[in-house]
Amino acid sequence: MIYHILTYLRKLFDIPGAGMFNFISFRAALAMIFSLTVALFVGKRIIKMLQRRQIGDEIRDLGIEGQMSKKGTPTMGGIIILLSILIPVLLFARLDNVYLLLMITTTVWLGLIGLIDDYIKVFRKNKKGLSGKAKIIGQIGLGIIVGSVLFLNDGVVVREKVKPGTPGAQVTTVGDRTIWSIESKSTITTLPLFKNNEFNYNMLMPGKGKTKQVGGWIIFVLATILIITAVSNGANLTDGIDGLLTGISIVIGTTLGIFAYLSGNIIYADYLNIMYIPSTGELVVFIAAFIGALIGFLWYNSYPAQVFMGDTGSLALGGIIAVFAIIIRKELLIPVLCGIFFVESLSVIAQVTYFKYTKKRYGTGKRIFKMTPLHHHYQKQGNAGIDARIQKPLQPIPESKITVRFWIIAILLAVITVVTLKVR
Amino acid sequence: MIYHILTYLRKLFDIPGAGMFNFISFRAALAMIFSLTVALFVGKRIIKMLQRRQIGDEIRDLGIEGQMSKKGTPTMGGIIILLSILIPVLLFARLDNVYLLLMITTTVWLGLIGLIDDYIKVFRKNKKGLSGKAKIIGQIGLGIIVGSVLFLNDGVVVREKVKPGTPGAQVTTVGDRTIWSIESKSTITTLPLFKNNEFNYNMLMPGKGKTKQVGGWIIFVLATILIITAVSNGANLTDGIDGLLTGISIVIGTTLGIFAYLSGNIIYADYLNIMYIPSTGELVVFIAAFIGALIGFLWYNSYPAQVFMGDTGSLALGGIIAVFAIIIRKELLIPVLCGIFFVESLSVIAQVTYFKYTKKRYGTGKRIFKMTPLHHHYQKQGNAGIDARIQKPLQPIPESKITVRFWIIAILLAVITVVTLKVR
Repeated sequence: MIYHILTYLRKLFDIPGAGMFNFISFRAALAMIFSLTVALFVGKRIIKMLQRRQIGDEIRDLGIEGQMSKKGTPTMGGIIILLSILIPVLLFARLDNVYLLLMITTTVWLGLIGLIDDYIKVFRKNKKGLSGKAKIIGQIGLGIIVGSVLFLNDGVVVREKVKPGTPGAQVTTVGDRTIWSIESKSTITTLPLFKNNEFNYNMLMPGKGKTKQVGGWIIFVLATILIITAVSNGANLTDGIDGLLTGISIVIGTTLGIFAYLSGNIIYADYLNIMYIPSTGELVVFIAAFIGALIGFLWYNSYPAQVFMGDTGSLALGGIIAVFAIIIRKELLIPVLCGIFFVESLSVIAQVTYFKYTKKRYGTGKRIFKMTPLHHHYQKQGNAGIDARIQKPLQPIPESKITVRFWIIAILLAVITVVTLKVR
Repeated sequence: MIYHILTYLRKLFDIPGAGMFNFISFRAALAMIFSLTVALFVGKRIIKMLQRRQIGDEIRDLGIEGQMSKKGTPTMGGIIILLSILIPVLLFARLDNVYLLLMITTTVWLGLIGLIDDYIKVFRKNKKGLSGKAKIIGQIGLGIIVGSVLFLNDGVVVREKVKPGTPGAQVTTVGDRTIWSIESKSTITTLPLFKNNEFNYNMLMPGKGKTKQVGGWIIFVLATILIITAVSNGANLTDGIDGLLTGISIVIGTTLGIFAYLSGNIIYADYLNIMYIPSTGELVVFIAAFIGALIGFLWYNSYPAQVFMGDTGSLALGGIIAVFAIIIRKELLIPVLCGIFFVESLSVIAQVTYFKYTKKRYGTGKRIFKMTPLHHHYQKQGNAGIDARIQKPLQPIPESKITVRFWIIAILLAVITVVTLKVR
């Protein structure tokens, strides 16, 4: 908003320093500092308010040591995250950017679904919250909107390199290289480890020409729905112990922010030989606010937590990560970058499937993990009896240590993600 | 080492993929992954060995809750950090780079001093360890070596921009800009927030020409000694609760790594308008190993810690940060970037000074903080009586939360450091 006001005012007056607002890096830095400040100071008040209004989330008794002491910790802290993202974005980002509008839509949409869910859980004392069906419908709805806008909006293009001399191509000179490129409304995305590093959704479609192209977009929309649903639910499952999802999301957000910054700058994109996507630079302002909001939230959410984000936070965080990755065409990197969400989800699926299978086959259900999602498995290890190698009872890993170790794995996955982009 | 072997072999044979070793980013990624692996796997064995040999650090009883449970946790874990830095650096870095040799010297030198200190504490049961005097002499010695090498070695230069057409200048063309620059053996360093962002140590020296220049170098060597001593001791004081110094050093290391990468690349340096320092790119390999080693060490060092780094780790970490910053001429950013070391040190100085002053003046010594270094103050807050605003007893902040909050502040300081570089 400030960008637009300043741009307007600068036509009339000369405002010293206002030119700084043209720099994405400057606005991103402002957005980050501002979102962090909101999360820290407004956050404190919101936590007190939540504490007064609710006597804490009704915690399921999981039989984990120290877990019942969490009673009384308020949930719905995701409100802090949502506000700390939206306020700085509305202030410092360019609101005429289609990608940015999609990100705001995603934040509000999934934030509202999570909020309704938490509201039912906390105030209606209905532990199940919003029905699983309603949540999925909401996620699919968002997927359709995001996929369709990316398909229909004329501003959504990539610049593909073409042979020198191609008619109609745009010529950019960077250093000793001259780049011939053409804007195209394409369904290509980044595919790591393969030779030209790119994959086009229409490759999955038979036929030629227009049919193939439209078919590609249909597959793309389906993929969008799948990715949003998977990542959003994965983040929701991961949000089980203090500070876990918050820290992991900071790592993922930072990685995506670097990608967006590089992809949106023709000099860097060419130098690093990655896809150049015009206008995605503006997303850096969004992700900076996202990172700042989470860092501020972590102040209160780190072990032992004074507030939980609830579904208000976790569904939105997952959705933001998914949509952001889709926009900058890095969604095929998600299985590695968001590897923890993936493994946490898999652990639940494997547990349930194996239990049902063994129950059917042997009469009694068996489990693979002590408990799922996976992070609880390590908390339960104490009940596992004797470690054969050292002849000592296995100790449960303390909650704060599980959190930091999962963060470390998240950092490692982020490094691997960046490396795979360069190895081909 | 591998770089040199491959370079030699490539003269004789054609080795597919060996060209990748020319890329600093590729070797840095390898170094990071390798150091992390060493820290995780060799680290586990070293911890077991340390545990057998010592019955843990003799912990001073500070009267902090839960603190005595730390008895039995082995110290000297810094050995893990040192090995995890040195092995990958020797393998993947170019050993003909003077900056890199200085970093290796720093690591070994301060690592040894810390090791002797810890050895005396643990095995000689002398709680004081190496005398303060001996430590300071060691740090001053290192300062003299580093300062002198940077002064005397012909490879240590910066490239300063000069007016187009200057005779003898080197011309580099990047995009539409042509950069005229001249190599100079100068004592300039980066000074944030000021107009041209640069400060020359010889400005503090009267006189002209050669005298002024040599005088500048003498001041530079003195500054080097001061900075190494201050940061090394600051890191040492900060290393008081689980995972604290490890996490902060990861943040500082990452920031310095980004600076080194950008300063060592003429394209980026010009684009961002920061000082271009030839050959510092190689330091990225070193700092990548540093970051990887610390992340791996944090796996065991996070709350509740299975191992402490001891002075073996903390003195070396501080020294590495100081020397690295000096080499890439960002040492004047240290008070902000390493703000936590600074404040921790100040808290001790203020406490001691105030206590002595009040004792002399009023007969009984008073304290500003419950306890110093500062991080212990928050652990002691429970004994502070009543918080006047909320009429409730002040709660001590749990150790793990103090750690994460100090990490958050470290991240914030890093962001501010980066921002100050661009604001002028």
